[in-house]
Amino acid sequence: MPKISEKGKQMPASPIRKLTPLAEKAKAEGKKVYHLNIGQPDIETPAVMLNAIKNIDFKVWAYTASEGTVAYRKALAQYYNKLGYNITPEDILVTTGGSEAIIISLMTCLNQGDEVIIPEPFYANYNAYACQSDSVVKPILSVIDNGFALPPIAEFEKSITSKTKAIMICNPNNPTGYLYSRQEFLDLKELALKHDLYIIADEAYREFCYEGKEFLSPMHFDGLEDHVIIIDTVSKRYSACGARLGCIITKNKAVMEIALRFAQARLSPGLVEQIAGEAAALHTPDEYFKEVNQEYEKRRNILVSSLNKMEGVFCPNPGGAFYVVAKLPIDNADRFCKWMLEEFSYENQTVMLAPATGFYATKGVGENEVRMAYVLNQTDLTNAMICLEKALEVYPGRTLASDKKLTNVHL
Amino acid sequence: MPKISEKGKQMPASPIRKLTPLAEKAKAEGKKVYHLNIGQPDIETPAVMLNAIKNIDFKVWAYTASEGTVAYRKALAQYYNKLGYNITPEDILVTTGGSEAIIISLMTCLNQGDEVIIPEPFYANYNAYACQSDSVVKPILSVIDNGFALPPIAEFEKSITSKTKAIMICNPNNPTGYLYSRQEFLDLKELALKHDLYIIADEAYREFCYEGKEFLSPMHFDGLEDHVIIIDTVSKRYSACGARLGCIITKNKAVMEIALRFAQARLSPGLVEQIAGEAAALHTPDEYFKEVNQEYEKRRNILVSSLNKMEGVFCPNPGGAFYVVAKLPIDNADRFCKWMLEEFSYENQTVMLAPATGFYATKGVGENEVRMAYVLNQTDLTNAMICLEKALEVYPGRTLASDKKLTNVHL
Ligand SMILES: Cc1ncc(COP(=O)(O)O)c(C=O)c1O
Ligand SMILES: Cc1ncc(COP(=O)(O)O)c(C=O)c1O
Repeated sequence: MPKISEKGKQMPASPIRKLTPLAEKAKAEGKKVYHLNIGQPDIETPAVMLNAIKNIDFKVWAYTASEGTVAYRKALAQYYNKLGYNITPEDILVTTGGSEAIIISLMTCLNQGDEVIIPEPFYANYNAYACQSDSVVKPILSVIDNGFALPPIAEFEKSITSKTKAIMICNPNNPTGYLYSRQEFLDLKELALKHDLYIIADEAYREFCYEGKEFLSPMHFDGLEDHVIIIDTVSKRYSACGARLGCIITKNKAVMEIALRFAQARLSPGLVEQIAGEAAALHTPDEYFKEVNQEYEKRRNILVSSLNKMEGVFCPNPGGAFYVVAKLPIDNADRFCKWMLEEFSYENQTVMLAPATGFYATKGVGENEVRMAYVLNQTDLTNAMICLEKALEVYPGRTLASDKKLTNVHL
Repeated sequence: MPKISEKGKQMPASPIRKLTPLAEKAKAEGKKVYHLNIGQPDIETPAVMLNAIKNIDFKVWAYTASEGTVAYRKALAQYYNKLGYNITPEDILVTTGGSEAIIISLMTCLNQGDEVIIPEPFYANYNAYACQSDSVVKPILSVIDNGFALPPIAEFEKSITSKTKAIMICNPNNPTGYLYSRQEFLDLKELALKHDLYIIADEAYREFCYEGKEFLSPMHFDGLEDHVIIIDTVSKRYSACGARLGCIITKNKAVMEIALRFAQARLSPGLVEQIAGEAAALHTPDEYFKEVNQEYEKRRNILVSSLNKMEGVFCPNPGGAFYVVAKLPIDNADRFCKWMLEEFSYENQTVMLAPATGFYATKGVGENEVRMAYVLNQTDLTNAMICLEKALEVYPGRTLASDKKLTNVHL
């Protein structure tokens, strides 16, 4: 039997999905499982986007240009320019989801063995994309006690080698929800210019910033034209994950030219998606975002306040996205999450969480942390929190609250 | 300014697309350009598929399972089993087009520097996929004089090294339209088993076989369960290139497990596409394929007979797909195709062709050959042939007919 590849063996299996069979089993046994483990929002896709699908009027479902249709890229440029990005349609390459945008960016910019610095915890699939593109992730630890702020620039400096080619950030962050500040961007800018590094900024959660907090992009800073690559996607913005529609934005012409070659090899992004994406970019009412943000903010508040009321639990109050990472009084999050599905139930319900270990590249870090996505309605979320509290009370691997340094000052 | 990657520099720019600016210019000057250069069919997508798009009834455009929905994979299994593939939905991984299916297959099976043997001329993007996956294409020459039959197995044997991991074929072939015979498959089977090689079979054009000729897949041969990987796509089958919907089929569990990891990293294929693909797999009337095949066969006949009537031109009569490769009495096909767009016109019309050199990995081969896709209606095709004949009469780089060995015995 022919062998499979070494790269294939090294490709990480999805850490978030490995508990899925246990959840299926729990459900088969009649338990209600609150899914706080996934990034699939329950929010409705804008009607204008769904209607665009229903109203397609072509007879031949044809390829589009590899870089995306002119119409869609024009609509996108308009959307971005409202946010102050100051770009043209030529600065945009339409991709099959943010996922493809990241893979193409890494392949375009990094040689085999080149390093990309990423503050951890980070979106677990970055490990997979690095593996796929033969690049190496250099994690820099951000910590829960200060709400996962950008690690000190001195830490980045320490990590930079001759192989460092890029810094990758996700703003607002998955899994922490952290929203980067202007000062943090100024620091990153200085660093990128000093060491001539790409800044790859994943803005999948751009539209979700709370309490009127300002969203900033490296596109808002001058002098970084050759350094910045933006990763974007409609997955979360329009609750349209199944559209597989993202893009790369860069003003660096060399990067765009080479990224386009990878895009040409796979021929075209989806046609229906681009038609729908165009409608969404042009016609989604401001109301939509306002309502969705209000809903998410309420949910975040439920989650954060419930969590911090639980004994021994600490959860920072993040500025964006729809995730929180919380520290629990437990021995081991992988064990705890498994136990929740296999052994625990409260009024025949349980909660599925994502162990935070999957979001850290450094081994042994985050073992008492979990990520929760607030993708359930407020009632379910409230019930899930009751359930979690009950679980923590009886979990056999519970640690004493006094074991944990719990500084809630950043709430 | 940060550098781009070596791989990026090596990624081939699409050879088919490089003449596009010249065609745009010709059109801007008012010339009618017959596009025989691309694989985008003009045939209508089945109504059942387009209606499935128009009738979507979800409110949240959600991710599907990374391997594809159960419903779509079941529908596909049914379609394949009618063809005698004898598979289950678990043997199918849904991909974003055949393109992604090929990239994932190469990454799953080949290490850096491992070799894949491919009869040339072959689909030009195979070069790009090999580059992207760090594998090496070893071409084996098939020749126009015998209609591009599989090269002798002795040639394969000569090319096999310790690094050879796979043989890749496309049946019916793009660019030649060649349809492999049972004996050729038996030869390939023996070779694959003897050297423990994967057979990666790209069946993008499966549905297009003419004169009732039998389509064969390596899935039809016993004893190859661990060796065969089928690449498929709805792009050509349903004239749905913009759907970006393909799949990998394999009974090799190890391959499937690792391919799934690459699929999990990019999260999900498109939801709307899978809904449409399911409808197409279950409900496309046999009539649709019958009519489309009749239409393509008529076009092929127009093309092949017109070409062979032209002095000094030879075009084999291929058994499938919607392409032919023809030998022209010209010095250099790249030059000729450029000249057609830039300098030639007949009644203010010209023809865009693809130089065959882009489909050969071996340098210097195919310099007097062009590929034509019969994706225009019969009238346009007839006019395009008239136009081509006139062009050949006045082309300054025309060679003498007697320069060419023209054995039309295989027509
Ligand atoms: C931070 C981040 N980036 C990128 C993606 C990829 O999204 P998609 O491929 O659906 O656009 C996700 C999905 O969850 C994400 O959380
Ligand atoms: C031989 C062959 N394989 C694969 C593909 C890729 O098709 P898609 O990615 O649209 O499924 C094509 C497209 O032209 C092709 O000709």
